[in-house]
Amino acid sequence: MWRLYHYALCPFSRKIRLTLAELRLDFDVVNEKPWERRTDFLVLNPAAQTPVLTCDDDERVLADSAAIFEYVQSEYGADINLLGETALAAAEARRLAAWFDLKFYADITTHAFSEMVFKRFIEKAPPDGRAIRAAKHNLDVHLGYIDHLFFERRWLAGDSFSIADIAAAAQLSVIDYFGMVPWSAHAPAQDWYARVKSRPSMRPLLADRVAGLPPAAHYDQLDF
Amino acid sequence: MWRLYHYALCPFSRKIRLTLAELRLDFDVVNEKPWERRTDFLVLNPAAQTPVLTCDDDERVLADSAAIFEYVQSEYGADINLLGETALAAAEARRLAAWFDLKFYADITTHAFSEMVFKRFIEKAPPDGRAIRAAKHNLDVHLGYIDHLFFERRWLAGDSFSIADIAAAAQLSVIDYFGMVPWSAHAPAQDWYARVKSRPSMRPLLADRVAGLPPAAHYDQLDF
Repeated sequence: MWRLYHYALCPFSRKIRLTLAELRLDFDVVNEKPWERRTDFLVLNPAAQTPVLTCDDDERVLADSAAIFEYVQSEYGADINLLGETALAAAEARRLAAWFDLKFYADITTHAFSEMVFKRFIEKAPPDGRAIRAAKHNLDVHLGYIDHLFFERRWLAGDSFSIADIAAAAQLSVIDYFGMVPWSAHAPAQDWYARVKSRPSMRPLLADRVAGLPPAAHYDQLDF
Repeated sequence: MWRLYHYALCPFSRKIRLTLAELRLDFDVVNEKPWERRTDFLVLNPAAQTPVLTCDDDERVLADSAAIFEYVQSEYGADINLLGETALAAAEARRLAAWFDLKFYADITTHAFSEMVFKRFIEKAPPDGRAIRAAKHNLDVHLGYIDHLFFERRWLAGDSFSIADIAAAAQLSVIDYFGMVPWSAHAPAQDWYARVKSRPSMRPLLADRVAGLPPAAHYDQLDF
């Protein structure tokens, strides 16, 4: 059995939860707060980051969400291809996955997470309005890019659902938990996210609830 | 013919220059300063980042260093495998490549680059001593990790030269250009880098010279 060390509002953990569900791999979860730097967790991943995927039946320990994705896709993805049919399609899916993992995360998620989660639970301070406004400004630019991609394509990277959609949904679903997404101003992005939300792989994420931090009212609704 | 848009001291450009040379793919280079946000370059990569790899013979445009690596490895790496022999070896190579691409870069290279290149050429200001000292402190921790890996292994990810070595050398070679690496305190890391430096793929990087910013005296010396 696979065991995933994750944090509910960690976008990279969400990316792997979605990947494993899309590939129909069963897994148990262990809730991990990586910032607590638990010794046993640091042994699994010296980078002190979720997600980490281990296997109870052997010694396998996998860390880094891109490395985990490539591993499970290559080993367990014979029937379900989250990269697209050609090497060029895969390059586009990986380019966009990196866009959301790196750029969207740096522009938006890290700031929103810091203000909404860290300030509340660790620093016991109110969110900084300027940081939230800056994240919202950046979000508008990224939603515009999703509008553009989805206007031209069936899914973000092309004709098929891919790791690009997974990486984007992983980030956006965290921001949507905080109620920060101006959906009504971005109809194509909203249509795309409604299609993602209706996938069975999304159900566990939409059921996430962090104690003391309830999600936005529409968070788990398919019509939002 | 392949064409690589790169900047000499961009570590991600260096990663792809090394990858293409290791795979024995010929390529022309175009010097690009991504912070100038040249319109024609933004069309190639809306993330406005080097490297970008294009093909003169068709419409192929590849962006993001991990996506480019996976593409050329899968399409042109039949004889030379920079991921290792098994899926598990590949997961370890990718985990470490991400360690250097993300963590080493965030802890060290981005600050060193900002102080040594941006301050000098764009802001016309002297480097901030505190930022340099913080980067050097972080560098000591990362060199300790390389010492540890190389003590147990022939190369960083295992028995064979891999994308992990390439990603590490790409970052470290930029820091070494600035003369910031305390090699004498990290003999195993120094031995590892000496082995990397002696590879033919490193020669073009060691010949790089940025006008107005000469490298450290030992930068291109195999005995340092």
